[in-house]
Amino acid sequence: MLRTHLRTHTCGELRLSDNGRLVTLCGWVQKIRRLGGATFIDLRDRYGITQLVFHGEDRENRILGEEGFHREMVLKIDGKVIERENKNKKISTGEIEIQVSIVKVLNESKTPPFTIEDETDGGDDIRMKYRYLDLRRNPVRKNLELRHRMAIETRNYLDKLNFLEVETPILIKSTPEGARDFVVPSRMNPGEFYALPQSPQTFKQLLMIGGFDRYYQIVKCFRDEDLRADRQPEFTQIDCEMAFVEQEDILQTFEGLVRHLFKTVKSIDIPTLSRMTYADAMKFYGNDKPDIRFEMKFVELNNIVKGKEFKVFNDAQLVVGICAKGAAEYSRKQLDELTEFVKRPQVGATGLVYIKYNSDGSLKSSVDKFFSTEQLKEFALQMQAESGDLMLILAGEKNKTRKALSELRLEMGTRLGLRDKNTFACHWVIDFPLLEYNEELNRWHAMHHPFTSPKPEDIALLDSNPGIVRANAYDMVINGVEVGGGSIRIFNKQLQARMFELLGFTKEDAQAQFGFLMNAFEFGAPPHGGLALGFDRLCSLFGGADVIRDFIAFPKNNSGRDVMIDSPSPIAQEQLNELGIGLKKK
Amino acid sequence: MLRTHLRTHTCGELRLSDNGRLVTLCGWVQKIRRLGGATFIDLRDRYGITQLVFHGEDRENRILGEEGFHREMVLKIDGKVIERENKNKKISTGEIEIQVSIVKVLNESKTPPFTIEDETDGGDDIRMKYRYLDLRRNPVRKNLELRHRMAIETRNYLDKLNFLEVETPILIKSTPEGARDFVVPSRMNPGEFYALPQSPQTFKQLLMIGGFDRYYQIVKCFRDEDLRADRQPEFTQIDCEMAFVEQEDILQTFEGLVRHLFKTVKSIDIPTLSRMTYADAMKFYGNDKPDIRFEMKFVELNNIVKGKEFKVFNDAQLVVGICAKGAAEYSRKQLDELTEFVKRPQVGATGLVYIKYNSDGSLKSSVDKFFSTEQLKEFALQMQAESGDLMLILAGEKNKTRKALSELRLEMGTRLGLRDKNTFACHWVIDFPLLEYNEELNRWHAMHHPFTSPKPEDIALLDSNPGIVRANAYDMVINGVEVGGGSIRIFNKQLQARMFELLGFTKEDAQAQFGFLMNAFEFGAPPHGGLALGFDRLCSLFGGADVIRDFIAFPKNNSGRDVMIDSPSPIAQEQLNELGIGLKKK
Repeated sequence: MLRTHLRTHTCGELRLSDNGRLVTLCGWVQKIRRLGGATFIDLRDRYGITQLVFHGEDRENRILGEEGFHREMVLKIDGKVIERENKNKKISTGEIEIQVSIVKVLNESKTPPFTIEDETDGGDDIRMKYRYLDLRRNPVRKNLELRHRMAIETRNYLDKLNFLEVETPILIKSTPEGARDFVVPSRMNPGEFYALPQSPQTFKQLLMIGGFDRYYQIVKCFRDEDLRADRQPEFTQIDCEMAFVEQEDILQTFEGLVRHLFKTVKSIDIPTLSRMTYADAMKFYGNDKPDIRFEMKFVELNNIVKGKEFKVFNDAQLVVGICAKGAAEYSRKQLDELTEFVKRPQVGATGLVYIKYNSDGSLKSSVDKFFSTEQLKEFALQMQAESGDLMLILAGEKNKTRKALSELRLEMGTRLGLRDKNTFACHWVIDFPLLEYNEELNRWHAMHHPFTSPKPEDIALLDSNPGIVRANAYDMVINGVEVGGGSIRIFNKQLQARMFELLGFTKEDAQAQFGFLMNAFEFGAPPHGGLALGFDRLCSLFGGADVIRDFIAFPKNNSGRDVMIDSPSPIAQEQLNELGIGLKKK
Repeated sequence: MLRTHLRTHTCGELRLSDNGRLVTLCGWVQKIRRLGGATFIDLRDRYGITQLVFHGEDRENRILGEEGFHREMVLKIDGKVIERENKNKKISTGEIEIQVSIVKVLNESKTPPFTIEDETDGGDDIRMKYRYLDLRRNPVRKNLELRHRMAIETRNYLDKLNFLEVETPILIKSTPEGARDFVVPSRMNPGEFYALPQSPQTFKQLLMIGGFDRYYQIVKCFRDEDLRADRQPEFTQIDCEMAFVEQEDILQTFEGLVRHLFKTVKSIDIPTLSRMTYADAMKFYGNDKPDIRFEMKFVELNNIVKGKEFKVFNDAQLVVGICAKGAAEYSRKQLDELTEFVKRPQVGATGLVYIKYNSDGSLKSSVDKFFSTEQLKEFALQMQAESGDLMLILAGEKNKTRKALSELRLEMGTRLGLRDKNTFACHWVIDFPLLEYNEELNRWHAMHHPFTSPKPEDIALLDSNPGIVRANAYDMVINGVEVGGGSIRIFNKQLQARMFELLGFTKEDAQAQFGFLMNAFEFGAPPHGGLALGFDRLCSLFGGADVIRDFIAFPKNNSGRDVMIDSPSPIAQEQLNELGIGLKKK
């Protein structure tokens, strides 16, 4: 099926069983070796590498063999499949080679600015500038093949469950809520702008109101944010919504999706996803997206540390520790590194207490001055430490200390080799708070988004104590990465109006921005909910990589630039005039 | 699989074999009828309609039954499946009804502004404003279900042929060539703009240079054009490209796709696509996208009409006619209508000559004064007219006359019922000219786009007579609609530079706009080509409809507005400031 008028086979296809066959191949010159009178070439295409041998009997082949071949030149060759003397077991075509009779140079190539090898000598910047050459490298191509496979399997799974893929518009309306929008000036409506969607949120809710029942879309979304290393201004979501469901239905449907993906794409059986409340995630991991590939849970120690000689503990709102199994042998230097680690501004602790439970049963700590061996044993008991383990303890204000210990826990997990990229721990975090207080703006903020419903049993608290109201909201976490989240939505106009009010919208603002949704709620909105998964991130996790950029064919850099096509770029004055806009002087 | 915590079955699922089963359904109230003490309700969801019966034995049901039910209200009911007395053979659930025991109103509904029926009383404007209600209507939902199915089957077919779906960026670079771009101001790069892609053309070519071999994408594209009825500012393409191929490979691969779609989506076997050169299409149909559901080919008559008494024919560059089978009975009034038709400015003819070949064998024409019966018989012979047929003839400048006769031919096809929406005639038009001359700008224009390759045998004519150079370009035509097209691309830097030169690009312009592509050509570009199919249009053809708008969930109107969300709209001054742009006074 890959046969065309220019080739009979691909470079990954021929086997010893094809011995004697006359074939035509096309591809790029990967490697050239000369041996005696013969020239050997590795010819490469997307499907593999096949060795060519030129015996230089005819003039053209001889000249090419001697001086004319270059790396990355494009060849079309006719020849005969023959058995190789020195077989190469590492590649699938390694038992044969092609005795070339006719060679045609389809295109020349300059020497590429970096080597087209699995391990290249090209740095990030040059690879991005010549992304089309970078794409020739196996690891990059494999990442995008993985991405293709994941999209196909996502669609297969959802299609079988009667989900409809519906395309929602890209030219929509700007809303000040949330992150910054990219906007698009309208020529036909001067002075007015479209916005690019940060997500199809309102459209998928309208589809539910429209009776579509089960919707999904693998869709580009856009956020004009200052970019961190792992963010792109345009990114892709698996976006889903269901009607006539409760939270349980959504959790089951989409953990089914992720298990299907692991099974079909990576041949891994993932167990049913465990669930953890937000409160427990914060208490035991200091983090709303805990990496549960390893245990090392937080143990709170307030009950045993207070009222001793150690002021740091006495003054602390929270004293909390982790037990690093088998790390009692850590050297002075390693412990100093950990102390330095927790004192980094991004982590923010003021110091680190350690207790070694040595293999000989003795205990050694950084607070021996203040605590007796008996007292240290009490720590060990509470933290379920055994001989050979290292206890690490932080103290201070509750939330800050939890955050810092979370970082230390991840660091210890990495150091102890407990975060293997090919092991996958997937779970749900549920029962998120509905609101969080924004101290700067002095108002409540929707933790998920303004359409998320409160738990029915907590609605009464909306007036008296909004901060403790829990939402029907959930995140899916894989290996400590939030790959997606969602909620059961509000589908009642009064409750939605109450939410907008709590979030500080005036009636006019709410009407101007979300009037169409509020109106839609008046015409029989069904109960509904959904979620969105970050597709770039999911692909990078499946690929065992940290950065999403390698799973995007043409990514942008941290300034939002595409260095290959040199975009963004100035546009003609005439274009600006047509759009009715002008540039401000800097 | 459609069971959730809120329903055991859908409204399209229950049959007589479920008799006696206790079920829970959710849906919208479609219809309410009261009969004796009972209330009957048609409950609707995406899957169908189920009849509910309320006997009003308990208080709540009675009250609801008497006054509380309204159209489009959302209900959840528990009840028992029972056999219906008056069976409804028209719907799949028509043999049963549900004896309701518990009813819960999940949401109220105001009376919708139009009826939610297959034939609605709502006009276009109101349906667009309340699109979420319009989506509840069966015909609209079925269109989008068709679209979903077509996307799934497109992907299945291409995936099996080893095509990879690769997402290309939406934030790209503006190029003055072609239609107008939508642009996006960059906040991080003040004074600079992204553009939204009119197609992923250059990116798919870069993927071929990157060795990806077979690419596709179902992708949103954007064009800031003054909109006609069937154009949308954002539209969707099935975009494809292949490397190491000739034109023949592309034609076979993509006629395979379309035949697969007809087979799987509509259970129709389409024969192998016929092919017609552009020259023949113009000569025999006056049109580069002929509707070949019916014959009625053009017959040129210059050889027999010249040198007679009739000045109109003598002065004409071209005299050409069609033979409308069985239309000899056309009345004076009908013939006058046809004359009016061809004289409309959009058609542009100055008059129409008819010759009736009556069933009694006599001939009657509008030019009896100038031509004898013998001469008229000669017309009939040349046009293969038989008794009962109507010959229609136009004369004038060649291209104008062909265009006008093409319109008349389509009109006659429609009048004679030869253009059934459920009959499909698919074919290729090939051998397009490479260039067309733009009289206004006084320069050559790429007929397809600047990357299209000339036929190798015509390259020598590029200097001497560029207008007759044929391209490796092809269009797929279904029922007289161009559903897509493509070409074999230039993959050689010198030839591409020559093309840019012919098209009036300065070297600097070419470098600024397409430098990255020209550079890429220096590193071993393979022979490649591809095509793009208009997905919205393809869906509307499959759905037997004329307008694409009904196959788009949330379309825009002819001013590019989404009247539902009221977009585009003004944005805050603060947003403009951040982007470094200002609005010009009108």
